[in-house]
Amino acid sequence: MPTTLQDFESVWPRIVADLQSHCTGYKLPQQSLDWFVKSLNYNTVGGKCNRGMSVVDTASILLNKELTPGTEDYFRAALLGWMIELLQAFFLVSDDIMDSSKTRRGSPCWYLAPKVGMIAINDAFMLESSIYVLLKKHYRQEKSYIDMVELFHETTFQTELGQCCDLLTAPEDHVDLDNFSLDKFSFIVIFKTAYYSFYLPVALALHYIGAATPKNLQTALDILIPMGEYFQAQDDYLDAFADPKVLGKIGTDIQDNKCSWLVNQALCRVTPDQRKMLEENYGRKDAEAEAKVKALYHELKLADFYTQWEEERVAELREKIAKVDESEGLKKDVFETFLRKIYKRSK
Amino acid sequence: MPTTLQDFESVWPRIVADLQSHCTGYKLPQQSLDWFVKSLNYNTVGGKCNRGMSVVDTASILLNKELTPGTEDYFRAALLGWMIELLQAFFLVSDDIMDSSKTRRGSPCWYLAPKVGMIAINDAFMLESSIYVLLKKHYRQEKSYIDMVELFHETTFQTELGQCCDLLTAPEDHVDLDNFSLDKFSFIVIFKTAYYSFYLPVALALHYIGAATPKNLQTALDILIPMGEYFQAQDDYLDAFADPKVLGKIGTDIQDNKCSWLVNQALCRVTPDQRKMLEENYGRKDAEAEAKVKALYHELKLADFYTQWEEERVAELREKIAKVDESEGLKKDVFETFLRKIYKRSK
Repeated sequence: MPTTLQDFESVWPRIVADLQSHCTGYKLPQQSLDWFVKSLNYNTVGGKCNRGMSVVDTASILLNKELTPGTEDYFRAALLGWMIELLQAFFLVSDDIMDSSKTRRGSPCWYLAPKVGMIAINDAFMLESSIYVLLKKHYRQEKSYIDMVELFHETTFQTELGQCCDLLTAPEDHVDLDNFSLDKFSFIVIFKTAYYSFYLPVALALHYIGAATPKNLQTALDILIPMGEYFQAQDDYLDAFADPKVLGKIGTDIQDNKCSWLVNQALCRVTPDQRKMLEENYGRKDAEAEAKVKALYHELKLADFYTQWEEERVAELREKIAKVDESEGLKKDVFETFLRKIYKRSK
Repeated sequence: MPTTLQDFESVWPRIVADLQSHCTGYKLPQQSLDWFVKSLNYNTVGGKCNRGMSVVDTASILLNKELTPGTEDYFRAALLGWMIELLQAFFLVSDDIMDSSKTRRGSPCWYLAPKVGMIAINDAFMLESSIYVLLKKHYRQEKSYIDMVELFHETTFQTELGQCCDLLTAPEDHVDLDNFSLDKFSFIVIFKTAYYSFYLPVALALHYIGAATPKNLQTALDILIPMGEYFQAQDDYLDAFADPKVLGKIGTDIQDNKCSWLVNQALCRVTPDQRKMLEENYGRKDAEAEAKVKALYHELKLADFYTQWEEERVAELREKIAKVDESEGLKKDVFETFLRKIYKRSK
């Protein structure tokens, strides 16, 4: 049985207490301590915690036993999951400033909360630093400690490189379709999302069970990076083609000038006239322009192409999963579980 | 002979090349690579590099031999120095956004440079990440590698805690002198400045020469943290009392509502009427209000008090330095050199 959000969240107060007592050791003035705790809770808790919980679930599959909430084993796996949630909180607090977003998880973005403003930048830094405080406190004695530290460093830098490329390729205020390409799409998706959302949870679970051999890590990478790419293409497809009532939100990729899978597939197929139309209408904050782009997507039969493309990607992934060598402690079921959650999802 | 800025800067292109080739290994698109290199050069080079160069100078003193520019030994010491400069660049790029600063080292702040804006936040992250890329590439084989990684983590978090406390204690737009105290002043100074500017260079030099024993690190801390506190008090004194022509800038601490040494000393000495005046005039963007605060500083004879206080602090530091145990490879001369650069400086 997969872990529940409730069980996963039950670990959080102990993590906050650890960080608080670390700061108390520094004699941090009370006002600053209260502020830090408020930022930790506001920015880290309240999401679906898919990434964090998948560390616990992957560890359970690899160990072939349930991790029981309340035990030290559960805590230590969930702690690694919460470090991914802290890493994501660090990115989201700052992405929201960079994108001028207004809300996050139904509340105002942290930088728009009362009295916060640009202090949010330093708060984001402190969320990132918390990862290493926790890792040192709880994993310092493990022989894989330095590997886990380096894993967080590398994943962080990869995500920053993905964000850098995304910001330069698709600025909200300047449309230039010459800047887009399927290669750029892949780079952005892999670096900005796939490493920290797909590879990192499994790599951490492998470290947790002591099976993070070079071979197992490479196998995880070879499957999870293409899976992350497929996931984002699907996300982009749903943004334009899913029923907003089912999806739970209204897609904004076209108006936001996103370097999405769909626009890049369209660019591979357009006539010169269609390209001109796309250039005139993509990335405009204007429902009519958006409708014209969507009409082009339909004309180019991108939904049909997506369905076929998805089948091919999933077939490739299944083939790779079937070939996974389980001799060093990795399990096919880890990847099957990830794929089951993604394939044919409608939201 | 201390190293020169020219020699120290001669190492920089190799560092940029290392970071570039790391990104090339990720197949980072050219536009993003060019952007990253531009940010590295704009934000890291062009300062006085006192912190970075002091790693080289401290290492030379500890080894009792010159490090010769062009040699691998010089490069490896200077590289650690450049990591401090990268850490500082990460802080300065983001501090400038948080403080709405306009210029830095005579040029527009990075976030105000053409086409940058809030992308600067992600650029700051990449400056921080660069430290760990370089540390891994050049120091991974050393037995003190993990200690150096943890040293950077801890110093980074300490600086962020100092910045957090500073931002909450002295917001530019809200004056509340009840929030100030000499304890807050000390916390902010020690955490925001002393750890990374005074302790970090010496701790890194000790790691470089293989003498970073717990005892040596503790001795360095016991001397350099009070020295950093003294340095900042002196900085605050000069901000109000030095001749702007000699200082090279016009002090703005009073108008900026800074939690400075002077205002905290004044708060210990004011009558109720003087305090009321201070509350009405401190932190206003107004030359007349500023002049009234300065007049109060004179009335309270803070310049005389500073001179006496400085003599006491320097005497204490000299006493501590005289007691330094050199048996594990540390040297009194390291601290004497730092103190010589600070004592009675006029700019």
